[in-house]
Amino acid sequence: MEKTLTQSFQVTYEYPVIFTEGIFESENNLLASLIHPVKEHIPPKVIFIIDSGVHQEHPELISKIECYSVYHTSRINMPINPIVIQGGEAIKNDIKYLMSILELIDEQRIDRHAYLIAIGGGALLDAVGFAATIAHRGIKHIRIPTTVLSQNDSGVGVKNSFNAFNKKNFIGTFSPPEAVINDTTFLRTLTDRDWLAGVSEAIKVALIKDANFFDFIEMHIKDIQFRNEEAMGKLIFRCAELHVNHIGNSGDPFERGSSRPLDFGHWAAHKLEQLTNYSLLHGEAVAVGIALDVTYAYLSGMLPVKSWHRVLNLIHSSGLKLYHPAMRHAINGRFEVLDGLEEFREHLGGVLTVMMLKDIGEGVEVHHIKESLMKKAIDLLASLSPADNRTSLARTTVGIEHGFTRTSNFPEDDHHG
Amino acid sequence: MEKTLTQSFQVTYEYPVIFTEGIFESENNLLASLIHPVKEHIPPKVIFIIDSGVHQEHPELISKIECYSVYHTSRINMPINPIVIQGGEAIKNDIKYLMSILELIDEQRIDRHAYLIAIGGGALLDAVGFAATIAHRGIKHIRIPTTVLSQNDSGVGVKNSFNAFNKKNFIGTFSPPEAVINDTTFLRTLTDRDWLAGVSEAIKVALIKDANFFDFIEMHIKDIQFRNEEAMGKLIFRCAELHVNHIGNSGDPFERGSSRPLDFGHWAAHKLEQLTNYSLLHGEAVAVGIALDVTYAYLSGMLPVKSWHRVLNLIHSSGLKLYHPAMRHAINGRFEVLDGLEEFREHLGGVLTVMMLKDIGEGVEVHHIKESLMKKAIDLLASLSPADNRTSLARTTVGIEHGFTRTSNFPEDDHHG
Repeated sequence: MEKTLTQSFQVTYEYPVIFTEGIFESENNLLASLIHPVKEHIPPKVIFIIDSGVHQEHPELISKIECYSVYHTSRINMPINPIVIQGGEAIKNDIKYLMSILELIDEQRIDRHAYLIAIGGGALLDAVGFAATIAHRGIKHIRIPTTVLSQNDSGVGVKNSFNAFNKKNFIGTFSPPEAVINDTTFLRTLTDRDWLAGVSEAIKVALIKDANFFDFIEMHIKDIQFRNEEAMGKLIFRCAELHVNHIGNSGDPFERGSSRPLDFGHWAAHKLEQLTNYSLLHGEAVAVGIALDVTYAYLSGMLPVKSWHRVLNLIHSSGLKLYHPAMRHAINGRFEVLDGLEEFREHLGGVLTVMMLKDIGEGVEVHHIKESLMKKAIDLLASLSPADNRTSLARTTVGIEHGFTRTSNFPEDDHHG
Repeated sequence: MEKTLTQSFQVTYEYPVIFTEGIFESENNLLASLIHPVKEHIPPKVIFIIDSGVHQEHPELISKIECYSVYHTSRINMPINPIVIQGGEAIKNDIKYLMSILELIDEQRIDRHAYLIAIGGGALLDAVGFAATIAHRGIKHIRIPTTVLSQNDSGVGVKNSFNAFNKKNFIGTFSPPEAVINDTTFLRTLTDRDWLAGVSEAIKVALIKDANFFDFIEMHIKDIQFRNEEAMGKLIFRCAELHVNHIGNSGDPFERGSSRPLDFGHWAAHKLEQLTNYSLLHGEAVAVGIALDVTYAYLSGMLPVKSWHRVLNLIHSSGLKLYHPAMRHAINGRFEVLDGLEEFREHLGGVLTVMMLKDIGEGVEVHHIKESLMKKAIDLLASLSPADNRTSLARTTVGIEHGFTRTSNFPEDDHHG
């Protein structure tokens, strides 16, 4: 005789994303106020983990945090000095870093009511967040993203990850943090390259969700490029807001379906990062990925030529690149980057679902990519790109005006899921 | 100027726990009906992982599953034959097993819409569930528990885990399965030891939640011990039901608080498993852990002597043991098992919260354990236990009647969190 019990429950997730400045000034109560006591008058253990890149630019940060924890000793019990760990994609590629964080959690007797606070770029936040999630089935963690990219995109979301089997983010979980604090202090010391790399995610989310935001970026792109803090602050806030709203309101925060609209341009980006051995920053790869997918959308007749032109122009004038030679790395005549489509489908599972563009601010999902047309799009971007790999706007215009205004019939050499 | 976005969303978790028989008979549609197609007419990939212990008793299972997947080919796409992996606690102690499951997921291009189906005891389900949770941030998994313990307790819940740093379940997540199927077929081939080991979790949950269920177990304990399937079936169903209801209705399914009532008797049990190098089965350790905590509750004046007597008698007449010599392993005169209290607190974090007993069916949480009294409880259980480590009921009775009817004042050598 068959019997069935049905388990059913809901879990609520809530966390603030705070935009501020100077969080480690002793008198600033913000961070301390986010730390919940174990019980009245008993502060939890708090361990700070700092990205080696941040440490290099802010060697004073360790002593600032030490002072901060002394000043806020009623809220923070810091058993060891802040730890500096390898930042950048390297931390996600070697399991020794993951093990060292888990060892720290064990040695310092960090428990579910204690806090791991990660200060760094998206990769460090991903790795520390993953360690926090799996240790004791989940330790509290607070993210303090220090790059444009992590402040406006990866750091404000609900994912963490680790790379394995040569696949970016093969391992990871959905696990919201206790809080995210975006402190502008850290942006000032970014290299121009890191500053710029974060702009592509803002262009991405504007393209699929908010034409007005695209207008804003277009209008202020030179301010943004040349490190105007006010313009960048607005870009980060709006980008983060669109990201947060999408996760909260999509109805699928933990991506159980096949759709991942925020990953516009990302199937190629992830593959390019891997093909370039992560010498291309994620944001740089996303810029190329966006350029590729808008070019495909244009070639397939989905996206008006003028809009295509606007997108390429905006990426180009931001100082980001539209093309990377790794896009045409071929094995037996086939561009390796195209494997990114199947890897992207595989990561989400189910039916291939790629975000495309009907117009600026209007994303549309497709379940079928013509591989031959995608190859054309790659060749077109390559042809628009001078040998030194910096796109000439003049040539872009020529390409657009004379080269590819038609959409042809291509052989049935398709990619679909 | 400070700005804050608030992220807030709910996630619903739902899965069936099915009690049935013969799920791999070809004509049985149950399992196939639980597999959701990727899209219409496209069956997902399904990988079966079998516990080596199950394989030994059911060598025919692999070909049965192969036939089943051929018969149900419209629902199941089985890319490789079922895999046999080391069962028992060993799988959770060596990362090579975890890596081998992850490699399998990678090699077989298993994605979020594919299924990992684990057939085995609690340890195998824990390890496979953990791998499924972290690969691609979560692959669907179905649990088919094959022991009494996993069918009535660990297998029906929302946790998975892996051991690290000599600590049981140091690593893991909360991650509900797609479904749990309890098939009685697998129980028939259990050794008497494994059959019996699962009874202690039923005694545990009866003690803290359901006096009538305790009466039932008491009344049928000899049937249960001597492998009456009907009695055991009822025991498993009610125990699983209480477990499932607790998780769904406690308001804290993912244990964000400090309380874990279902872990009555478990602080000592987990430590004993480790101290005996896992030669003691989890269920056996839990029986000893229950005996210890009810003895402590009795000595502290919390639990009436008659109820104490009933509990020890029931454990004893089930064939389970009340004591293990490892309980008195001492370092510098201190019983090592007592470290289990702090490790238990640390795993959950926050304030020490131990479930104790006021009476049968009436659990009560305490935040303070008198270490000296716990030591007395251990000594008392040892004294009731003959050297061959099989408790004599006669001596138990003598002990109870003549030895320890008073609660004394003990020195303040306390354990609290």
